[in-house]
Amino acid sequence: VTTTRLETFADGVFAIAATLLIIDVGLPANFHDSLGHELLQIWPQYLAYAISFATIGIIWVNHHTVLMQVGRVDRSFLFLNLGLLVSVAFIPFPTRVLAEFVRTQDDGRAAALLYGVTMMVMSVTFLSVWLYASVGRRLIAPEAGSQAISGITRSFLPGVPMYTAATLIAFVSPKASAALFGLLALFYMVSSSFFGRREDRRFESS
Amino acid sequence: VTTTRLETFADGVFAIAATLLIIDVGLPANFHDSLGHELLQIWPQYLAYAISFATIGIIWVNHHTVLMQVGRVDRSFLFLNLGLLVSVAFIPFPTRVLAEFVRTQDDGRAAALLYGVTMMVMSVTFLSVWLYASVGRRLIAPEAGSQAISGITRSFLPGVPMYTAATLIAFVSPKASAALFGLLALFYMVSSSFFGRREDRRFESS
Amino acid sequence: VTTTRLETFADGVFAIAATLLIIDVGLPANFHDSLGHELLQIWPQYLAYAISFATIGIIWVNHHTVLMQVGRVDRSFLFLNLGLLVSVAFIPFPTRVLAEFVRTQDDGRAAALLYGVTMMVMSVTFLSVWLYASVGRRLIAPEAGSQAISGITRSFLPGVPMYTAATLIAFVSPKASAALFGLLALFYMVSSSFFGRREDRRFESS
Amino acid sequence: VTTTRLETFADGVFAIAATLLIIDVGLPANFHDSLGHELLQIWPQYLAYAISFATIGIIWVNHHTVLMQVGRVDRSFLFLNLGLLVSVAFIPFPTRVLAEFVRTQDDGRAAALLYGVTMMVMSVTFLSVWLYASVGRRLIAPEAGSQAISGITRSFLPGVPMYTAATLIAFVSPKASAALFGLLALFYMVSSSFFGRREDRRFESS
Repeated sequence: VTTTRLETFADGVFAIAATLLIIDVGLPANFHDSLGHELLQIWPQYLAYAISFATIGIIWVNHHTVLMQVGRVDRSFLFLNLGLLVSVAFIPFPTRVLAEFVRTQDDGRAAALLYGVTMMVMSVTFLSVWLYASVGRRLIAPEAGSQAISGITRSFLPGVPMYTAATLIAFVSPKASAALFGLLALFYMVSSSFFGRREDRRFESS
Repeated sequence: VTTTRLETFADGVFAIAATLLIIDVGLPANFHDSLGHELLQIWPQYLAYAISFATIGIIWVNHHTVLMQVGRVDRSFLFLNLGLLVSVAFIPFPTRVLAEFVRTQDDGRAAALLYGVTMMVMSVTFLSVWLYASVGRRLIAPEAGSQAISGITRSFLPGVPMYTAATLIAFVSPKASAALFGLLALFYMVSSSFFGRREDRRFESS
Repeated sequence: VTTTRLETFADGVFAIAATLLIIDVGLPANFHDSLGHELLQIWPQYLAYAISFATIGIIWVNHHTVLMQVGRVDRSFLFLNLGLLVSVAFIPFPTRVLAEFVRTQDDGRAAALLYGVTMMVMSVTFLSVWLYASVGRRLIAPEAGSQAISGITRSFLPGVPMYTAATLIAFVSPKASAALFGLLALFYMVSSSFFGRREDRRFESS
Repeated sequence: VTTTRLETFADGVFAIAATLLIIDVGLPANFHDSLGHELLQIWPQYLAYAISFATIGIIWVNHHTVLMQVGRVDRSFLFLNLGLLVSVAFIPFPTRVLAEFVRTQDDGRAAALLYGVTMMVMSVTFLSVWLYASVGRRLIAPEAGSQAISGITRSFLPGVPMYTAATLIAFVSPKASAALFGLLALFYMVSSSFFGRREDRRFESS
């Protein structure tokens, strides 16, 4: 299995998991209000859809950042990636639960915890994928600069503690926790656009 | 992330979003008529399925027209594309709602508005993707002719006002609005076949 | 849009439509028998799943046979292909309906007609795709032999009348009609393996 | 149809089947406990999701091991692969049934048998794919070493008897049978990582 092959499979799972999110957006089976009112009423579903889609999109971008530095693939790396894919493909379930229960107090907490734990598992497996490949340059391509490698490590390390913090806040307020999951996605997009700008230049000059 | 990679991911989302549309085509849970009668009765579902599938197909064709002119990709371009994908992958939801409610008067209006707003957001993000890449030739490949660039801009500009008009008509008649969404897809296919004919020739000669 | 691009998108739709079929395989909401008994009871669902999956698989194989002879793509060809994809992605719906109603007399007829009409539309659009490309060698690659072209035309022509016949038989017996859809898939696989054998040799020697 | 094409289609089906598994993870329609309690209560669903995802992931890895040795493809090989894909894409159904019924005694047995029989069919079709290609080196690439070929055969042969054994144990205990399906996936990952290590070296040195 080559890097290309892994990329194709992982991209497939990312694209499918993101696109499947829409299946869970829906109206309640019986509603007594007008359709217009109901469509506004279910706004947490739209938000949850957008946040999870953006999060999977960011994982996709970062996964490519990883594979661009990787020169070869071994079976352990493959199965670490499989672990990452298992957790990414799981995201539609906590998204659905969070959208349904975020507005209730006690169940909202459980829903935000489920979402947060999924994200923590995802960021831990993602970090493992990267550290397995990069520590001692185990699978890193010879032409990859060591500055780029440590730059990527620096940019990935905050993920686990940040998702842990956002998850713990669910004990105080499920809504605040959910808002943080959204802000984290936004933060990653903005910071990645900045970090990326430098990186893009590097790739162009090479 | 290269142009190819972005294409693979975007194509995946387009193909999945279009193919998922069929999940929402279905018979009512309890029906009292014969199956044959019911199958004819749900014709708005078939039409909504075909219109949304064709619309996503056209977005796919146009997205390639864009990427064929793009020589390099930066992170901002990537996240603009992510915005486009979020709105395209959302299409199955308004399709389902429109098919179910188009025949009712008040709820039909809300359903057509939901569909129309989704299409407006989609065409705005699509236009942003193109304008971000093409203004000042920011990401345009050196070999792309400036005539082709301005031709594409001209062909994309009407999208937003046309979808806005079709959406506003929902206030008068949801059915007329839905019919216009279908006609817009048809119009794009026909005009694109004409515009494309010239374009194809250009690519052949190169 | 190049042949490769079209292939990727079409393959995506074929793979997704086939894999989505499993969503519709399921137990009734309330069943009073043992699970084992129910699992045997729903055999038409397994059969319908296998026949539709095989049918989509055959369309996939034949679609590649077409694209291997095609040297260039124009917009009209693209939109004819889109028509084919619309009808292939529709297959999960008639499959679901046929599996549920094949054992009833009157509704079984409607279900078999729905399935048959879908297949007729699919085979007509497939034939259009091929004829548009091949008549006058409009889009055929220069290196493609004229014998291969007419051989493919000969092998595709029976599709429409055979599906029409199988559909008409639904008026007499829905079950016989359903059995014929299965036999048609089987026949295509076997005959294609024979036709293919010669064809493979041809491609190897080139 | 070339090896690459088959790979793309098969990878699509593998990725979709695995990612679709999440659709079947869900809360019961009406639950009286707290959400937190219910989320813990449905642990068999998480486990079934993870085991089936890992199993499909392993099939994906092994399928590539096969195609890397295959130099050319004929129609019979193609349709054997189609048979494999039919059984892999079927996996979400027995997964859903097993997760729901594994904790009941009689229905649990039927559920484990359904899952086991699916896996047996899958491993038989997988073995057929490999044996069809490798016996007499029918489709094997000239540069593939005969040691590698017999090594692969040795590593694939235990699949059928092991899945048969795990299935038969369902008559005694559905839970033990389900646990074995999980252990088999784990065993394959570990052993494949070892076998793979040697294999990877071989490919690197070439």
